[in-house]
Amino acid sequence: MIPGLMQTRQLQIIDILAYAATAHGDVEIVSRLVDEPIARSNYRLIRARAERCAKALLKLGVKSGDRVATLAWNTHRHFELFYAVPGLGAVLNTVNPRLFDKQITFILNHAEPRVLFFDKTFLPLVERLAPQMRTVETFVMLAGEKAHIAGEVEALCYETLLATEDDGYAWPTVDENAGAFLCYTSGTTGDPKGVLYSQRAVVLHAMGSSLNSAFGFDAFDVVMPCSSLFHATAWGLPFAAPLNGCKLVLPCEKMDGASLQELIVEEGVTFSGGVPTIWTMYLAHLEQSGAKPGELQRVVIGGSAVPRAMAEAFKKKYGVQVLQIWGMTETTPLGVIATPTPALAELGEEALDEAIWTRQGRLQFGIELRIVDDDGNDVPRDGESSGALLVRGPWTIQRYYRAPSDAADSDGWFDTGDIATLDQYGFMRITDRKKDVIKSGGEWISSIDLENIAVGCAGVKVAAVVGLPHPKWEERPVLVIEPHEGASLSKEDVLRYLEPRVAKWWTPDAVIFDSVPLTATGKIDKKVLRERYQSLLSNS
Amino acid sequence: MIPGLMQTRQLQIIDILAYAATAHGDVEIVSRLVDEPIARSNYRLIRARAERCAKALLKLGVKSGDRVATLAWNTHRHFELFYAVPGLGAVLNTVNPRLFDKQITFILNHAEPRVLFFDKTFLPLVERLAPQMRTVETFVMLAGEKAHIAGEVEALCYETLLATEDDGYAWPTVDENAGAFLCYTSGTTGDPKGVLYSQRAVVLHAMGSSLNSAFGFDAFDVVMPCSSLFHATAWGLPFAAPLNGCKLVLPCEKMDGASLQELIVEEGVTFSGGVPTIWTMYLAHLEQSGAKPGELQRVVIGGSAVPRAMAEAFKKKYGVQVLQIWGMTETTPLGVIATPTPALAELGEEALDEAIWTRQGRLQFGIELRIVDDDGNDVPRDGESSGALLVRGPWTIQRYYRAPSDAADSDGWFDTGDIATLDQYGFMRITDRKKDVIKSGGEWISSIDLENIAVGCAGVKVAAVVGLPHPKWEERPVLVIEPHEGASLSKEDVLRYLEPRVAKWWTPDAVIFDSVPLTATGKIDKKVLRERYQSLLSNS
Repeated sequence: MIPGLMQTRQLQIIDILAYAATAHGDVEIVSRLVDEPIARSNYRLIRARAERCAKALLKLGVKSGDRVATLAWNTHRHFELFYAVPGLGAVLNTVNPRLFDKQITFILNHAEPRVLFFDKTFLPLVERLAPQMRTVETFVMLAGEKAHIAGEVEALCYETLLATEDDGYAWPTVDENAGAFLCYTSGTTGDPKGVLYSQRAVVLHAMGSSLNSAFGFDAFDVVMPCSSLFHATAWGLPFAAPLNGCKLVLPCEKMDGASLQELIVEEGVTFSGGVPTIWTMYLAHLEQSGAKPGELQRVVIGGSAVPRAMAEAFKKKYGVQVLQIWGMTETTPLGVIATPTPALAELGEEALDEAIWTRQGRLQFGIELRIVDDDGNDVPRDGESSGALLVRGPWTIQRYYRAPSDAADSDGWFDTGDIATLDQYGFMRITDRKKDVIKSGGEWISSIDLENIAVGCAGVKVAAVVGLPHPKWEERPVLVIEPHEGASLSKEDVLRYLEPRVAKWWTPDAVIFDSVPLTATGKIDKKVLRERYQSLLSNS
Repeated sequence: MIPGLMQTRQLQIIDILAYAATAHGDVEIVSRLVDEPIARSNYRLIRARAERCAKALLKLGVKSGDRVATLAWNTHRHFELFYAVPGLGAVLNTVNPRLFDKQITFILNHAEPRVLFFDKTFLPLVERLAPQMRTVETFVMLAGEKAHIAGEVEALCYETLLATEDDGYAWPTVDENAGAFLCYTSGTTGDPKGVLYSQRAVVLHAMGSSLNSAFGFDAFDVVMPCSSLFHATAWGLPFAAPLNGCKLVLPCEKMDGASLQELIVEEGVTFSGGVPTIWTMYLAHLEQSGAKPGELQRVVIGGSAVPRAMAEAFKKKYGVQVLQIWGMTETTPLGVIATPTPALAELGEEALDEAIWTRQGRLQFGIELRIVDDDGNDVPRDGESSGALLVRGPWTIQRYYRAPSDAADSDGWFDTGDIATLDQYGFMRITDRKKDVIKSGGEWISSIDLENIAVGCAGVKVAAVVGLPHPKWEERPVLVIEPHEGASLSKEDVLRYLEPRVAKWWTPDAVIFDSVPLTATGKIDKKVLRERYQSLLSNS
């Protein structure tokens, strides 16, 4: 090869904020806060505050490569740290405050931050765990002077730190391969694992996720991230929004229907996204109040499959388009998103809705997908054949933080642990987690498909399906049902409901009424269920 | 810093075609050809043909880093070379066939290609210049077997080469900083200069130019590039279109109104772009035929300022949005594009149109702009203060091919040679070329502004303004007018027209009726004019 002669300028996260401040300086950032009134700002002011924040961090001894942790909600102060910390070449470790104490302590002692920024909500948590934090030297509460409490950890006040500095800071040039964000995944097994996003991955992801195949933002959009900033950087919305000059609305921790509705209407939100639970509450609020969702156009939903009734209600009652999204911490996090294509549109509106509501999304530029069988061969892209989902690309993980070996294979393919199908239209559908798929007589049964069907049975609140060891078939499905309070529901009712809806050999060998255990991130804890009923089918 | 742990997968041009073939394989590519019927294909087939093309290139001895040249129109075969050549790690040198013989020979002997692909149109040109081409070993005519002529250069037949190979090729991994395209700029002075695009610059440019701030493509778009593929890769449309799954329509050399209209209507073109001349012809065709422009939504116009009447006609008669674009070979080539923003929209439709029709465009993510005075200080962003336009970013030039020193300064700023203003909305307006701006008594007079006003005077076909040496004022403007055939127009008529429209001190010291010389790329050759009238004002 001969080297090209264009600039090899590094892809740096701070350049996104610099762009927004220069090209869209007056565009607003509106933020709820804990125990403080709503804060209104704009990209120009936020850049100035990020500059002050960077200088304050330097005074606290933070150097390039150091980790800085947060236990914080979706606020403009957290957003400022998203730029100030990577802007210095340091790493922001966004910790999920909803994890168990043990996991939070593990993460902090694994990431080894020197400074911990936290919202007032978490003062008790921080005070409780501080004695076990081996590396944290300085605690800073993300609060204004009036709201500030130093507490047992003698926390500094964020706004006082900023007030001490002046505007203006010459950001250093940071290598685009430098670590920038350290986000931990908490599986149901083992310790949390750290994914260390590079500056380059975050910038490329921001560009890729801004395309019309994905979020498709323009300067007229008003974006409200209802996924948490501590969850894989809230799908990267804190980067995609300023990159497109979008107004940004940050709801803090207030995700109830009335609070969201207030921001949606008052601030003219056009785009939001989050897990289904939030939108169930939001739709219930609209239903009860008779209100309309203002300028809202699109809601992107991820984390688990979108209930069809939710997508239909949004579309038919309110004219809002629901798009599914799938990704994981290991993919920064965008994998696929269910935006329409002409090939689907040709099938008619109903078929299009069916496709985009029942599949996780379509192939995006920047992340390659493969579906392979147990021997590593690609399965047909027919929407039926399922296999292990592998991903690859410039925002896909190479290795977990401090791991001794790569998480991706030598060709760059990372096994997501999901089982999925791909269809002729390039749409992917997750059918199961690899560890949850039920292997019965050499064939696979999707626990997720069974759960989605069973939850439609009247009286069922939660349906969980696990594969249990079976002497003849290797594994067989068992259905655990947590009924709604006061519902009278028999095993026979459930089986009668399933009969016309599932293949005979998919029918669960047992139906059990019990409470369904959840993990710290709100997912069904199948590990506990498998242990609980381990030998149920052993004597079948 | 600590290194991030995401994949450092290289940004490679071939991955754009791979994405389109995988995710949008059935999406059509329609191409006119020289002396052959329209060819219909799709991204899946084009990838297979690019694979065959790569294997044929290897057999012709092309290795990584080698240059391969083209003298070719906008066809699917040229498009295939856009991927096959960089896919091998080689460099595609797209030569402008409209240049003078001397310039073409210079370029070919400077780029040193081993293979030259050309359209049938250029057989006489190739035969004429072949004896002077020092490095070309193989000539290939981009034709099917029936249309093929070997000629004196014993050209191979492109389709025969492809027919000899079979589908399937494992593309090598190419360093993202490898050279991929070598495009020459032909200024009015000196030899053409080569700009060597890297794989990385082309991919980042494709992502950046796809944003809604720029082209804003989605999978429903049908894109027809009417700028030439040999002009800075036709604004990168051959990359942005497949990256978004857009249908691609290639008009070969047929840019007359009737031919464009046929493709626009038959193929459902939604987006096109080119220089103003083409759209003047197209609008005239619509006017004469009474036809409508089908599904056409947006026309992006660059190369020179968009006449207001053209933008108005497109909008008011046909509902088509005209967007100005500015860029140069040295910026791959996107600089700015005039897409609406909420801040402008708030001023009302008329003010919005005024802004996007009179300014070249607004700040884009990925290319920074500065406007500086003679001392290198930033001038105010007030839309009035003008200065030298500097640019910087990952798709901006670092150094010309084979140049001994950088074209960008030590901070990465490249002086475009343009004089421009920036306004509070982030919109940039070119007011002149640096070498053409007229320095009169310490103040600057924009030759372009004066020309744009003078060309509005009835009877004027071309208006050219140059600054000539003046004993008292250093320079003063002189207006050269080429009138429409048969127009009767006096110096007094012109001055009377200008009087209410320009400041007194901007009024030209002389008005001359003469033919206006053009460069090979159709721009006014001011160098010739300055020489022709050199001492006109010396005795003033």
